[in-house]
Amino acid sequence: MVKKTTLGNTILRPHAKTHQLSEIGEIYREFGIDKITVSSVSMAQYFANNGWNNITIAFPVNLTELDLINKLAGEMTLNILVDSVFSIRKVIEIIDNKCGVFIEIDSGYHRSGLEPWDNEISEIISYFNDTSKLLFKGFLTHAGHTYNAKGKTAIMEIAKSTHKEMQVLKSEFINIFPNIISSYGDTPSCSMSDSLVGFDEIRAGNFVYYDVMQYHIGSCQLDDIAVSVACPIVSVYRKRGQAIIYGGAVHLSKEFIAADIENKLYGYVVKYSDKGWGDPIPGAYLSSLSQEHGIVNIPEKHIKDIKPGDILGILPIHSCLTANLLKENYIIY
Amino acid sequence: MVKKTTLGNTILRPHAKTHQLSEIGEIYREFGIDKITVSSVSMAQYFANNGWNNITIAFPVNLTELDLINKLAGEMTLNILVDSVFSIRKVIEIIDNKCGVFIEIDSGYHRSGLEPWDNEISEIISYFNDTSKLLFKGFLTHAGHTYNAKGKTAIMEIAKSTHKEMQVLKSEFINIFPNIISSYGDTPSCSMSDSLVGFDEIRAGNFVYYDVMQYHIGSCQLDDIAVSVACPIVSVYRKRGQAIIYGGAVHLSKEFIAADIENKLYGYVVKYSDKGWGDPIPGAYLSSLSQEHGIVNIPEKHIKDIKPGDILGILPIHSCLTANLLKENYIIY
Repeated sequence: MVKKTTLGNTILRPHAKTHQLSEIGEIYREFGIDKITVSSVSMAQYFANNGWNNITIAFPVNLTELDLINKLAGEMTLNILVDSVFSIRKVIEIIDNKCGVFIEIDSGYHRSGLEPWDNEISEIISYFNDTSKLLFKGFLTHAGHTYNAKGKTAIMEIAKSTHKEMQVLKSEFINIFPNIISSYGDTPSCSMSDSLVGFDEIRAGNFVYYDVMQYHIGSCQLDDIAVSVACPIVSVYRKRGQAIIYGGAVHLSKEFIAADIENKLYGYVVKYSDKGWGDPIPGAYLSSLSQEHGIVNIPEKHIKDIKPGDILGILPIHSCLTANLLKENYIIY
Repeated sequence: MVKKTTLGNTILRPHAKTHQLSEIGEIYREFGIDKITVSSVSMAQYFANNGWNNITIAFPVNLTELDLINKLAGEMTLNILVDSVFSIRKVIEIIDNKCGVFIEIDSGYHRSGLEPWDNEISEIISYFNDTSKLLFKGFLTHAGHTYNAKGKTAIMEIAKSTHKEMQVLKSEFINIFPNIISSYGDTPSCSMSDSLVGFDEIRAGNFVYYDVMQYHIGSCQLDDIAVSVACPIVSVYRKRGQAIIYGGAVHLSKEFIAADIENKLYGYVVKYSDKGWGDPIPGAYLSSLSQEHGIVNIPEKHIKDIKPGDILGILPIHSCLTANLLKENYIIY
């Protein structure tokens, strides 16, 4: 991702919500990254405490936390998101430190943000004329609908049309605000693009670990998945072809991929060696999760070698939610 | 639940995995409860540190934690679960403090445990003759398939047939082990039974909070749900009939109820007053969750009063996973 953004002359401001760890932040620093994205005020505080001083909180500004945001803005280069006149007015009322503001654009995901043709955009922008505290930074979007797109062509089509919309928006206001940028980022389209030309800033984050969902989307290969959860086996049922691991929804989250209405995939299964882990055990998968139990389906050929007390690795469906639950990592270089 | 178990002359050993909080434990104590169930060694340690000295770890014994279990067994009345000869042999090898052992029975849920007719049961029991450290406590089952049963009749049928199986098992071994008991517990069947006659011990836990899933199963009424998550509204989209809350998968978990393949329910929506909260807003529901965003669908009539900075309450689908994520509660009496 660093190579691609360098090639595209694009700022890489990776999303830290995937890992939430200063140690992973240090790896980014080794690549020259000095700007990050977070999704909450508490995450911004955590990274501020760990030496980061250029942070975008990529979440619609939480008005109940404006005092904290104001404090943080006094200590660093902080950017926040607004998508309503109501919010920008409250922000102006409370924030008296320099603070960057992006307007969030809904590029088709239909989660947060204003549609690119919404009149409220220019209404929000009109508030930046009357104040010197708030700096209008430009337009930010998360094309999260790439997660549901079918195949590379469809995903690249989303990136292309979003790029066009963001360019039109930017060109409309760049004469008055010459420093505004367009900020983009979702791991599927950023992973599949050969170069990241066009956007001024990329905020993808999941690519630092990847996961089974990204593999299924086509963002990565299986051996790009850089995180696994070590789970002790507690029971083995040879007749059923299943084993129980101490690894449940409180460790992995309940995110799954539905093969069909009856069959769900909660993770792939790997074995550990001194060097990390290898390819998933063919035909083995995590088929069910309750609070602390995981049920692993294991083909006959492999289950006969497995006994309680052994450790299996699980490649998670959604690494961000898993990392959030487990908090700590052991990093293998 | 206290009344029912008293009526049935049954031990109530509530499962603490739902709340994981000593404060809720104190409420149980006020009702005379002095025994609890947990689902991990770390949870047992937490409650031991908070004055509990009679704990069952209702999870197939994790052989990688036998040293910790042995230490705990030296400090209190501790019960563990085994469901294999392999595990009981390892347990005998390491545990040298007095420790109770249940054999877990699979009464049809097909998660962990041995089927009631499995020969391995008597093989495991044969190990209790040669040792005085391990005390054979009896048979334990979790009839988790009540969660998928359709209606009260089907759920009561599961409780009845499980009771029969457990009685047969107990009667087979009670002459040699006169103190063995049968331990049962899942919130749906324990909530729907008028009395809990028959089982010696009940381990239900979710009933302390209940949740939307239990309401859908029929275990409780809406106003029995005793937990909600206070979420700030960050964006309101009147045209879409949706609002975004700061409340996502990292707060509520991704547990949902599927209305159909397209429509998922992640929680009901309530408003707060001084006295707590009222009935859910009619027609409003949490329709989507990503890591920190929640999308709430709100009918036109109600959305016009809602603005960023307001707080909505979410009644969670699965209170256990939500409580595990949020860790802290504010208790309203």
